[in-house]
Amino acid sequence: MGLLENIKTPADLKKLPVRMLDEVAAEIREKIIKVTERNGGHLASSLGAVDIIVALYYVFDFSKDKLIFDVGHQSYAHKILSERLDLFETIRTEGGLSGFPSITESKYDAFTVGHAGTSIAASLGYCYSRDKLKDDYFVISFVGDASLFNGENLEAIFANDKKPEKLLIILNDNGMSISKNSNGLYKVLTKMSLKRRYSKFMNVMDKIFGWNFIGRFLKNVKAAFKRSLDPYVVFDTVGIKYVGAFDGHNIKLMVDMFNDFKQAPRATMLHFKTKKGKGYEPAENNADIYHGVSANGNGVAKGFSSLVSPLGEKLISKRNDVVFLTAGMAIGTGLSDLMRSRPDKVFDVGISEEYCVTLAAGMAISGLKPIVCMYSTFLQRAYDQTVIDVCLQNLPVVFMIDRAGLVGNDGATHQGVFDLSYLRHIPNMTVLCPKDGNELEDMLDYALELNAPVAIRYPNGAITKFETVSKFSADKLWEVVKTGGNTAILACGPRVLEVAEKASEQIPVTVINARTVKPLDTAVLDNIADKNIVTLEENAEFGGFGSAVTEYYAAKGVKASVKVVGIKDSFVEHASVGAQMKNNRLDVESVIDLIK
Amino acid sequence: MGLLENIKTPADLKKLPVRMLDEVAAEIREKIIKVTERNGGHLASSLGAVDIIVALYYVFDFSKDKLIFDVGHQSYAHKILSERLDLFETIRTEGGLSGFPSITESKYDAFTVGHAGTSIAASLGYCYSRDKLKDDYFVISFVGDASLFNGENLEAIFANDKKPEKLLIILNDNGMSISKNSNGLYKVLTKMSLKRRYSKFMNVMDKIFGWNFIGRFLKNVKAAFKRSLDPYVVFDTVGIKYVGAFDGHNIKLMVDMFNDFKQAPRATMLHFKTKKGKGYEPAENNADIYHGVSANGNGVAKGFSSLVSPLGEKLISKRNDVVFLTAGMAIGTGLSDLMRSRPDKVFDVGISEEYCVTLAAGMAISGLKPIVCMYSTFLQRAYDQTVIDVCLQNLPVVFMIDRAGLVGNDGATHQGVFDLSYLRHIPNMTVLCPKDGNELEDMLDYALELNAPVAIRYPNGAITKFETVSKFSADKLWEVVKTGGNTAILACGPRVLEVAEKASEQIPVTVINARTVKPLDTAVLDNIADKNIVTLEENAEFGGFGSAVTEYYAAKGVKASVKVVGIKDSFVEHASVGAQMKNNRLDVESVIDLIK
Repeated sequence: MGLLENIKTPADLKKLPVRMLDEVAAEIREKIIKVTERNGGHLASSLGAVDIIVALYYVFDFSKDKLIFDVGHQSYAHKILSERLDLFETIRTEGGLSGFPSITESKYDAFTVGHAGTSIAASLGYCYSRDKLKDDYFVISFVGDASLFNGENLEAIFANDKKPEKLLIILNDNGMSISKNSNGLYKVLTKMSLKRRYSKFMNVMDKIFGWNFIGRFLKNVKAAFKRSLDPYVVFDTVGIKYVGAFDGHNIKLMVDMFNDFKQAPRATMLHFKTKKGKGYEPAENNADIYHGVSANGNGVAKGFSSLVSPLGEKLISKRNDVVFLTAGMAIGTGLSDLMRSRPDKVFDVGISEEYCVTLAAGMAISGLKPIVCMYSTFLQRAYDQTVIDVCLQNLPVVFMIDRAGLVGNDGATHQGVFDLSYLRHIPNMTVLCPKDGNELEDMLDYALELNAPVAIRYPNGAITKFETVSKFSADKLWEVVKTGGNTAILACGPRVLEVAEKASEQIPVTVINARTVKPLDTAVLDNIADKNIVTLEENAEFGGFGSAVTEYYAAKGVKASVKVVGIKDSFVEHASVGAQMKNNRLDVESVIDLIK
Repeated sequence: MGLLENIKTPADLKKLPVRMLDEVAAEIREKIIKVTERNGGHLASSLGAVDIIVALYYVFDFSKDKLIFDVGHQSYAHKILSERLDLFETIRTEGGLSGFPSITESKYDAFTVGHAGTSIAASLGYCYSRDKLKDDYFVISFVGDASLFNGENLEAIFANDKKPEKLLIILNDNGMSISKNSNGLYKVLTKMSLKRRYSKFMNVMDKIFGWNFIGRFLKNVKAAFKRSLDPYVVFDTVGIKYVGAFDGHNIKLMVDMFNDFKQAPRATMLHFKTKKGKGYEPAENNADIYHGVSANGNGVAKGFSSLVSPLGEKLISKRNDVVFLTAGMAIGTGLSDLMRSRPDKVFDVGISEEYCVTLAAGMAISGLKPIVCMYSTFLQRAYDQTVIDVCLQNLPVVFMIDRAGLVGNDGATHQGVFDLSYLRHIPNMTVLCPKDGNELEDMLDYALELNAPVAIRYPNGAITKFETVSKFSADKLWEVVKTGGNTAILACGPRVLEVAEKASEQIPVTVINARTVKPLDTAVLDNIADKNIVTLEENAEFGGFGSAVTEYYAAKGVKASVKVVGIKDSFVEHASVGAQMKNNRLDVESVIDLIK
C-alpha cells in the first residue's frame, strides 16, 4: 500500500514506471473490495476492468480525452484514478459519489450513463462534434461483451459509412456472457494473439482473426465456433478496424497497444478478455452473484423479486401456456431459480429490451401467455413496442415490473419513477400495484384471466406485512384499509401505504390501498369526493396516479380537493430509499404536515 | 385483365400454372397504381414487392402459414391476394382497409405493424409458440433492406443461439438504401447467383456469397465491396442460413426456391433484389418521391415540414454549431432540401431512432446544437434515450416533432397522439406547440437560447393562417386570442386552435392559444381559474396537456372546472383527420355542445 495515495491526479500515474502499474491495480482492487463490502455496488465487473482502466489512464490524458463507459457499473477504477480517491468511500451514499459516471460529479465523467448500449452512439457524437469544431482529443468507448449487442450499439456500429478517427472502442469481454470458451479454435486464436505483438497485427490487416465474441450467441452450441470466422471483414466493412483478442489483465501489453493506436488512430475496436471479479476469489468463482452486491454483502435482495420463481413454478404447474421472458435481468428480477428448474419456460434474451417485448407479443398472438420480467427503468427502452406491438394488438402480455419506484443507491439512471406516467396513457393497458405477495399472486391470476396487456409494478426492498381487509378482485379494485377524518389518503404502492398507515396512527384519516392505477376504482372515488384527498405514489408527480385522480374528478365535473404527492419534477439522485422519500415529501412527517 | 378477379381466395392462385403468375403480378400492379393514385399510399415500395408476394402465395398456405411484414407499407399485393381484392378500393379511407397489415382486419394479417424492426422478433415469437404448442406452420418474415438494420431486428438476429426451423426471412433489397450497386464484385456475384439453381446453393454451404446488403452502410464508399465477403458465415454462426442475392422479380425462380426451402426448412434468410416502383415508370425513376404519395398524387405535403429546410438554412447562416439529425425521415420531416444544400450539416442515420437521439446527446455535450427531426410516433422508440441521455444530462437537444397529432389515413400505428404524455413528465424537458410558421421560428430561437432539452411538436397537413395577438417569448408563453363569456378554451396546437376560433364565432368564449405544455402559463391559468375551462389537444386525454391543467389547479388548491378533451382512451383507426377529430369530439360542433 502506498502508491495509490500519491496519485492525486491522473498525471501522477504517468510518472510511475510501467512495471509498477500492476501494484497500482492491486491497490485499486483492495480499495474497491473494501468499500463495496460496506456500501454495496458492482463488485465483480469493476474488479475485472481495473487493469484496462489503469493502462488507459497511463496512456491517455483524460483531462481532455473522453472515456465513455457503457452502462458504467464497471467504472470504479476510473473514479479512483480521476481525483476521487478520497471520496471513493462515499460511493453510493447520499451526497457521495454515484455508482455510475455522472457529468455533474466530475469533469472526467464524459457522459452520464446507466443503461446499456449508449456508449458508441455517444462516442460518435463526441467525434463528430470534435471534427466539426476543430477540437482535438481521443474518444474511448468502453463496452462490455453483453452490452455490445444491445440494439442501440448495433445501430451505431452499422449506421454509418464513414467512421471518425481517434475513436477507440474497448471491448471488455469478461467471458460471462460468452460461452465457456472451451472451443478449440477460440483457444488457438487467443493464444496466437497473445504471442504476437499488437503492432504486427496493425500491419497485417488482411489477416483473419476469430470473431470470438460472436460466441455470446452460441452458448452451448459446441460446433458453432468452427464456423465463426472473420470478424475483421465485418467490422472493417463498416469502417471499424477490429483487433483481438488480448489479455485484459496484461497492463504492459495494453499500454503498448494503446500507444500504437495513438500513432495510427483510425476507428478501432480492441477486444480484451478479462475475468469478472478478478483479484477477489469469491467473486471470481461466483461472478453472477457478485455482479451487484448489496451493502450487507448479500447479492440477492429479499423482496417481491424473491416471489417470482415460486409463483412461476406454481403457475407452470397449473397451465402449460405460461412462459417467462427477461432481458438480461434473470437474477435481479428473481427468475434465476425458475430458469434452472424449468429452462424450457424461461427466455433470457440478453440486454435487448425491445426484442424481448415484441418477442412476447409474437408469443402471445400465437397461443402462449408470456410474462415479461423487467426493471421499470429498462422497460423505458421498450415503450414503443409496448404501445404498438402489445397494446395496439391488445395481446395478453403480462409485465412484471420490478424496481418500480425509488431504488436507493443505484442512482438517477435506475430510479423506476416514470412507469405509471408512460404506461397509464396507453389504450388497452391495465396497471396494477400490489402491496404484498398475496396481492401479487391475485393480480397475476387476474392478469392471466383478463387476456389483455397488464402491467404489475412493485418496488425493490423488503416486503412489508399488511393486514388484508379486502382481497383483490375485479369487483374490489381498491382496498379501504381504514376510515376516519376529513382526509382520505390514496396510497399507491406498499411503501407509501405503510407511510399512510403510520400517519393514520397519529391523525384521523381514511386510508385506501389504491392498488390499481388503470382502471381506477371509481366507486371509491365517488364515495370520498367530498373529502380532502391526498394521493401518494413513488412515481413522477406529472402524469401518474395522482394525475389520473385529478383527471377523473375533472371529467365528472366534481370540484374535489386533491393533493398529488409524488416524485418532484427533477431526477432523483442516489441516497437511501428513506432519504429519497423524505426529499419528495413521501415520509410520515411530511404527509401529516400536509394533512394538517 | 381478368385473372385477378377470379382469385377470390389464396387457393385460387395455386390453381394457375406458374407461367401465368407474371400476368397476375401485372394485374396486381395495375390495381395498386390505380387505387393509390386516388387514395394515396405507399406506391413505390408496394410495387417492388409484388412478385415476391405472388411467389410466396403460390407456394405457402397463408390460411395457416404466417406472413409477417416489417413496417408493412409494402404489403398491398398481400392484401389483394388474401380475400381483399374487392375491398382494396377502400384502402386508407375511413372504415376501409388499412394501409398496413392489421390483425383486426384479416386473418391473413399475422401481426399488426407500422414501425420498423419488429418482424423478426414477432416471427421468432410465433416460432417458439408453435414449437411449444406442437403446432405446425411456416413463419415468413418479410423485411426491407432499410429496416433489417434497425436495432430491434439486429437484436433479434443476434440474441438467440438456436434458431427455430420453418422460419424464412425474406430480405427485400430494393436497392434504394443500398449503394448504386455499380461495384464489379457485386455484379459478378449477383449474376453468378442467378445462373445457378437455388438447390445447388443449399447443398454447397461452405461457398462464399457476397454480403451485398452490408453495402447499405457504404453508400459512396466505392472500395468497400471489395472487402465485404462472407455473409454466410456471419449469419450461419447465429443460426440463420443466408443465401443471396437473387432476382426478386423472377417469379418462377422464387417459386422453385420457396419449394426447396419447404423441403429443408432450417432458419434461412433469402436475399432478393427488387426495384422500388417496379412497373410504373415515374415511380421507378423517382422512388424516393413516390415512396409514399398523398391522395392528390403529390408526395410532399405542404405544411410545417416544408418550413424545416428554409429555417435550417437561416439558422446555419447565423450560427456554426447547429446540425440536424434524422432517422430515415429526411423527406417526411422536410430535411431533404437542406441535406442537398448543406450535406455537412445534416445526419440521416437510417431507421435507428435510439442511436439518433443518443448521437444528438453526444454532440450536444461536446459543443454542437443538434436538432432532431422525427415523427411523433417514431420518437416513441427513443423514449429512454430522451429521458436518460438528453434530459438527465440536461443537454441542449431540440426535437422537432413532426406528425404530432392525428395523421389521418396512415393508420393506428402512425398517429402521433402520445408525445405530450410521454414527454411532459420528463424532468428538464420543455414542450412547445406552435400554431404556425412564425411561432415555430420563434420557438426554435427560444429553444437554442434556452440551452436545455426542448421538444417542439406540430401536426401534418396545411398550415392555417392565424392572426398574432402576442408574439411568443419567455414572458409571453400563451396567447390570449379573444376574451368573452364564462368559458375559456385552452387550445393546444393549430388545428384545435382553429376549432376554438370557429366556435368563438358562434358562442361567446375566451380563446387561448396554449402554445406551451411545459411549462404552463400559470399567470393565464390563475386569471381564468373562475371560468369554465375546456382544454383541447390532439393527444391522449390521459397524461397530456389537459391533465397538466388539472394537476396545476389541484396543486394550487383551486377548485376549478376543467373539461379535458383529447384523444379518447383507444387507438385511432385510419380516416381523414377531420373524421378523426370529430370522433374524438375535437370538432367545432362538439366543442360548442360541450360549452352549452
